[in-house]
Amino acid sequence: MIKPRTPPGVMELLPPDQIAFQRMLDTIRRNFERFGFLPVETPVMELSEVLLTKSGGETERQVYFVQSTGALEKASQGGDSTPELALRFDLTVPLARYVAEHEHELAFPFRRYQMQRVYRGERAQRGRFREFYQCDIDVIGKDALSVRFDAELPAVIHAVFSELDIGAFTIQLNNRKLMRGFFEAQGVAEGELQALVLREVDKLDKRGEEHVRETLTGEGFNLSAEAVATILDFVKIRSTSHDDALAKLDALGGGNDALREGVAELREVLELVRALGVPESAYALNFSIARGLDYYTGTVYETTLNDFPQIGSICSGGRYENLASHYTKSRLPGVGISIGLTRLFWQLREAGLLGGAVGSTVQAMVALMDEQSLPDALEIARRLRAAGINTEVQMEARKIGKQFQYASRAGIRFVLLAGDDEKARGVVAVKDLAREEQFDVPREELASTLRVELEQSRALAGR
Amino acid sequence: MIKPRTPPGVMELLPPDQIAFQRMLDTIRRNFERFGFLPVETPVMELSEVLLTKSGGETERQVYFVQSTGALEKASQGGDSTPELALRFDLTVPLARYVAEHEHELAFPFRRYQMQRVYRGERAQRGRFREFYQCDIDVIGKDALSVRFDAELPAVIHAVFSELDIGAFTIQLNNRKLMRGFFEAQGVAEGELQALVLREVDKLDKRGEEHVRETLTGEGFNLSAEAVATILDFVKIRSTSHDDALAKLDALGGGNDALREGVAELREVLELVRALGVPESAYALNFSIARGLDYYTGTVYETTLNDFPQIGSICSGGRYENLASHYTKSRLPGVGISIGLTRLFWQLREAGLLGGAVGSTVQAMVALMDEQSLPDALEIARRLRAAGINTEVQMEARKIGKQFQYASRAGIRFVLLAGDDEKARGVVAVKDLAREEQFDVPREELASTLRVELEQSRALAGR
Repeated sequence: MIKPRTPPGVMELLPPDQIAFQRMLDTIRRNFERFGFLPVETPVMELSEVLLTKSGGETERQVYFVQSTGALEKASQGGDSTPELALRFDLTVPLARYVAEHEHELAFPFRRYQMQRVYRGERAQRGRFREFYQCDIDVIGKDALSVRFDAELPAVIHAVFSELDIGAFTIQLNNRKLMRGFFEAQGVAEGELQALVLREVDKLDKRGEEHVRETLTGEGFNLSAEAVATILDFVKIRSTSHDDALAKLDALGGGNDALREGVAELREVLELVRALGVPESAYALNFSIARGLDYYTGTVYETTLNDFPQIGSICSGGRYENLASHYTKSRLPGVGISIGLTRLFWQLREAGLLGGAVGSTVQAMVALMDEQSLPDALEIARRLRAAGINTEVQMEARKIGKQFQYASRAGIRFVLLAGDDEKARGVVAVKDLAREEQFDVPREELASTLRVELEQSRALAGR
Repeated sequence: MIKPRTPPGVMELLPPDQIAFQRMLDTIRRNFERFGFLPVETPVMELSEVLLTKSGGETERQVYFVQSTGALEKASQGGDSTPELALRFDLTVPLARYVAEHEHELAFPFRRYQMQRVYRGERAQRGRFREFYQCDIDVIGKDALSVRFDAELPAVIHAVFSELDIGAFTIQLNNRKLMRGFFEAQGVAEGELQALVLREVDKLDKRGEEHVRETLTGEGFNLSAEAVATILDFVKIRSTSHDDALAKLDALGGGNDALREGVAELREVLELVRALGVPESAYALNFSIARGLDYYTGTVYETTLNDFPQIGSICSGGRYENLASHYTKSRLPGVGISIGLTRLFWQLREAGLLGGAVGSTVQAMVALMDEQSLPDALEIARRLRAAGINTEVQMEARKIGKQFQYASRAGIRFVLLAGDDEKARGVVAVKDLAREEQFDVPREELASTLRVELEQSRALAGR
């Protein structure tokens, strides 16, 4: 006998949570499609040679390799032991490979969404996952891609998280060119040094301002107290409204080319985000946001829940110069965002933000009064299903109390009874477990009545 | 520069095919939920020790093992090289592990659906896949499960394939007890011998009756000519209607216990399948169907497309005695079916049965007449999206002919134009690329007009 268990670092759900998770996936997908993004799925296994184009790197140390039984046997007999296959660790490298491979069959700008699981050999730790869903959208241009596309992504983020209904959120915007220009003006011109400074600045919340100030003026950095003060003032900038955001950009003054370019880009993005109908309470400038410094080159995004800042960013991304330089000579600039849904779901559940009773996918259950009534129960179910109502039938005439208990625990809303009395009167007794009501409905009207009830509840819930 | 390519044996789709594939997945899921099945997802990686409970077997020789970078390094330094993780090769073993692991948190009979990819190191060959979707439903009982549940699965199969709309199909039914009883009566009592005989019988179509007759009467089998004739007559039995099916069961006579039990089960299943509203043209007895002989114990199913028998079974399954004997002492009988969607999709596409123009997920495109009109175009898009219409905006004012060409190629139905003239008149020009019509719609009515058009098309298409 083997103990049934999953490997550490995966999230496996019982059906009620799986239903809640699936609804989040559906909501995200619906909104991605609403904005004109097209679905792509890629294989979970890529050729190692194709996947691991860069040498080293933290992510690549976490890669899972895949070998068939045959390959393992060959390796054990002294054959080549380099695994030919590896599991994707994100959706960006597969996207690069996909776009380069199918370049001549795709229309650019290419707008794709992808919602699949990725794999990382993370250290086992609570809340860290080795298998997790990423929900990504990207727009890829050929040769060039207007900064205007950078404005669409906050609109998608706003649509997704409004409908997910997990509380107020703020989409935080920054621009890598603006940052580069600013740091150059403070004498931090070199890219790696900027990265180191930003890493220190990132510790502001944890270590406090004094610690960061001491580090940056101390050995290793040797920045002037004045420069550090300017930097600390800069990274603390947050806008409080659309006009305030524009004013904060103006206040940065002329500066160098990079700064001016970044300011102009952010200004255009802000204007179009507003034109797309995103309320100004949902977005703000935040000059501390840097993100993958060796990757992003223009607009960068993070999204935080206003009441749960400790959860960190729930949706991040940005603009990059060239998606697929390892695979094609074509220049493919792009902009994208990613939602790490497994981690988000886990955190929302931990924080009690999932709302609990989402209800079952099963909307109605036909109870079975006695064994002879089974064909009739199946006929009732057939009609409900034909009308689009998810229906389960009790296939055995257990005690009626047990049948109700089952429906109640399972989160099924309607229990339907058709005993001899109901049959004689041509009705079905409906027990609405949500409203704790019971009423009779003529057989012919059962499906339409339940549909109306379900539609009303959906409308009331605002979805 | 690395050549971008996928590993052999995976199916990767361009967006139009991915949309068609996703619609099939959605249809299957919708119908699984319609019949009250609950969603489950399991991790793609299982502990090898848990996944590989049986020793040997063809499937287990095809298993992919997974190792993190760290584990590989350890193995290369002479550490334990047995991979701890393996990719699931079906959804049945993970279901067994899941049900055993969560036994006390699940309500039985447990009705679950699972639609995920599985992995097998198949020989590389056209039409064979190493990564493919399985779409499974199973009902698992605790201690016992009424044969009545066996009748629900043909109803689900009928609902799924009717809505998938890929042509007429027949759900073929048989029963392992009936077969066992019949073969025992012919002097083929031993299980393994039965399996060998059935394997020969399975060659009827390819090798012809004479070849099979010679083999079974020849050395190794030594069956009498009479027994072989009876067997060949038996496995050729097909019913042509509901009443014919019942008559063919009657014609088998009393026989031994196993035969009688099998006949009684099939009769009950047939009656309930009819009560569930499955038309009699969609199901039939087929006494040649055996399926996994060491696994199934009662009802077995196969489903074939009437006009494309060469595709083979598109949905198969059956009843089994005990799901999870490796993981729990509880007896968990069940019944289930599986659709191998990747292979089915590939075969339908090869046979030209996909119907081609499924249309994009994008329903409307707002064309951009000139650069200044962008905010207006975004506002039009915002309203359409708020009304639930999937909308893309041309973010740059390319030549209008190019914009139309793009929409047409992408399969987008509505192109919307709001030039100076339309703006002055308070209308938007709508070009319906499906009907090749152009008409003006007042701005305020645009979203509702397009919704009505889209709803009408959906209703006409019967979905």
